[in-house]
Amino acid sequence: MDFTTHLGATAAELETTLEALIRQPAAATMGEPRLWDAMRYATLGGGKRLRGFLAAEGATIMGVSRQAGLRAGAAAECLHAYSLVHDDLPAMDDDDLRRGKPTTHKAFDEAIAILAGDALQTLAFEICADPATHSSGNVRANLCHALAVAAGGPGMVGGQMIDIAAETADQALTIEQITRLQAMKTGALIKFAAEAGAILADDRAAQDALGTYATHLGLAFQIRDDLLDVEGDEASAGKRLQKDANAGKATFVSLLGVSGARKAASEEVDAAIAAIRDFGSQGKWLQEAAEFAIHRKN
Amino acid sequence: MDFTTHLGATAAELETTLEALIRQPAAATMGEPRLWDAMRYATLGGGKRLRGFLAAEGATIMGVSRQAGLRAGAAAECLHAYSLVHDDLPAMDDDDLRRGKPTTHKAFDEAIAILAGDALQTLAFEICADPATHSSGNVRANLCHALAVAAGGPGMVGGQMIDIAAETADQALTIEQITRLQAMKTGALIKFAAEAGAILADDRAAQDALGTYATHLGLAFQIRDDLLDVEGDEASAGKRLQKDANAGKATFVSLLGVSGARKAASEEVDAAIAAIRDFGSQGKWLQEAAEFAIHRKN
Repeated sequence: MDFTTHLGATAAELETTLEALIRQPAAATMGEPRLWDAMRYATLGGGKRLRGFLAAEGATIMGVSRQAGLRAGAAAECLHAYSLVHDDLPAMDDDDLRRGKPTTHKAFDEAIAILAGDALQTLAFEICADPATHSSGNVRANLCHALAVAAGGPGMVGGQMIDIAAETADQALTIEQITRLQAMKTGALIKFAAEAGAILADDRAAQDALGTYATHLGLAFQIRDDLLDVEGDEASAGKRLQKDANAGKATFVSLLGVSGARKAASEEVDAAIAAIRDFGSQGKWLQEAAEFAIHRKN
Repeated sequence: MDFTTHLGATAAELETTLEALIRQPAAATMGEPRLWDAMRYATLGGGKRLRGFLAAEGATIMGVSRQAGLRAGAAAECLHAYSLVHDDLPAMDDDDLRRGKPTTHKAFDEAIAILAGDALQTLAFEICADPATHSSGNVRANLCHALAVAAGGPGMVGGQMIDIAAETADQALTIEQITRLQAMKTGALIKFAAEAGAILADDRAAQDALGTYATHLGLAFQIRDDLLDVEGDEASAGKRLQKDANAGKATFVSLLGVSGARKAASEEVDAAIAAIRDFGSQGKWLQEAAEFAIHRKN
C-alpha cells in the first residue's frame, strides 16, 4: 500500500468517528439542528486529515487501541475545523471558499459560524475528557491539558494573532518571527496530534520523540504550503491562492526564495525522520508522511 | 458578615486568581500582547462573579482546598467571559456596552475579540486540566468533561443558538421552550460551577444535590434578569435595558406577567434551598445566594 492510499483509508476511519461524535441531542429543538448542521458541514467530508492521521498512527506505534487514537485524532480535527471556520470570518481572513466549498459563514451565516466554531472547540475537549477515549483519568487529563496548551493563547490562537498583527506592521517578519508564528499557528496542533499516541500510552520519552518529529514536520508542511501558494493552481488546491503574496505578507518563500525554501523544507523532513529513528520500521508511515509533506500537490 | 460583603470578598479572591492565570508567555512578540490585553480586559475587573463564587463556596462546603475551588471558579469565569465577548459581536447581539465599559470588539477590534474569546475558552479547559487544580487526574478529567458538556452544543452554545433562532421565528417561545433555552444558555455553566466543589471532592451524591440547587438558582436568576430588564435603570445595570422587550422577544415576564414572574422566581428559590437542606448550616451562603438572586437590583 502506498502512503496516499493509507492516508485515505485512515481519513475514512476518522470520518466515521467524527460522524458519530458530532450528533445533536435527541431533544434538540428550534435553532439547534442548524447549529449541528453547521458543525458537521465545517468538519465532515474534507481535508487530508493530517492531524487525525498522526494521532491514529502514533497510537498504533505505541500499541494503544485504534479507537483511542481515532478519538484523539477526531478531537484534533474538530479543533482544526473550528480554527478554519473562525479564520475564514469576514473580520478575519474574509474567505468565501474552503476545500472547494463555500465557507461556513457563507453557507450558513456569521452568527452560526461563530457559534459552530465555538462548539467544535468545546467538543474537542469533551472527546479528550470522555472515558470512552481512555480508561485512565490521568491520561484523559493529560490529553486535555496538551490540547489546551496547543490551542490557546500560547499556541494556535496566539499564532493567528501574530499573523494578523504582521499584516499591518511596518516591517516584514524575519525568518525567526515567521518560524515562531508557524510553530504556534499550525505547528502546535500538529504536535499535539503526533504526541497523542504517546500521551495515551503514558510514555514520556516517546512523546518527546514524536513532538520533535512533529515540530519539523509542521515546518516542512508550512514551507510546502508557501511554495504551493506561488506554484499551485486553484482548482487542485480548492482555495484562493497567492493571497499571501498579494497581501505583501512575508512567507518562507519571500524570505528564502523558491530554491532556498525547497532546501529548508528538505532539511526539516530529514530532521523529522531522524527524530523517530528509534521506532525503526514501526515509524514507516510517519517517515512517509514527512516525505509526503514536501512532495504533495495540494 | 452579610451576603454581599461575602460575595465581594470572594470576588476579590477570584480576581487575584484570574489575574495570575491570564498572563502572556515570556517570549510574547508582535501582536500577542494585544491578544492577552483583550483577554484580561474581557475577564478582569467586573461582574458579580456568581459562577466563581458558587465554585469556591461548593469547595468550602465539600472540604476541598480553597485554591482548588478558586481555580475551578476562575475556569467558569473565563468561560463566561468568552461567551459574553462573542455574544456582544456585531454578528450576534451587536452590543457596545458591557459592565459599564465598551465591549471588547469596541475597545479592540472584531478580529481580536473573536480570538480573545476563543483563547479564553481554551484557558478554561487548561485550568481544569492543570495538576495545580487537583492532584488526581481522574478529578481533573471529570472537571474538563463537566465543563465541556455545560459549554458546548448541548449546553451554553446550543442555548445561544435557540435564542437567535427565536428572534426570527414565526411564533413566540412557550414557557417550556424558554425554560429549556435558559437552562442551556446560562443554567448549564451555573450548574457546572455549583457542582465543581463536589467534582473536586469526587462525591456523586453531593454533586447531584448541588446540581439541583443550581438548576433552580439559574432559573431564579434569569427570571430576575427579565424583571430587572423592565424595572431597572441602565446606570445601575451597566448595560442597555429593555432590549428583549424592544426586540419583541418572549421572556419570563412577557409570558407570566410581572407578578407571575415574581411568584415563579420565589418558587425556584424555595426549590433551590430545599435541594441543599442536607448540608445544614454549611449551606448558609448558598441559601443566601438564592435569596440574593431574586432581591438584587442589578
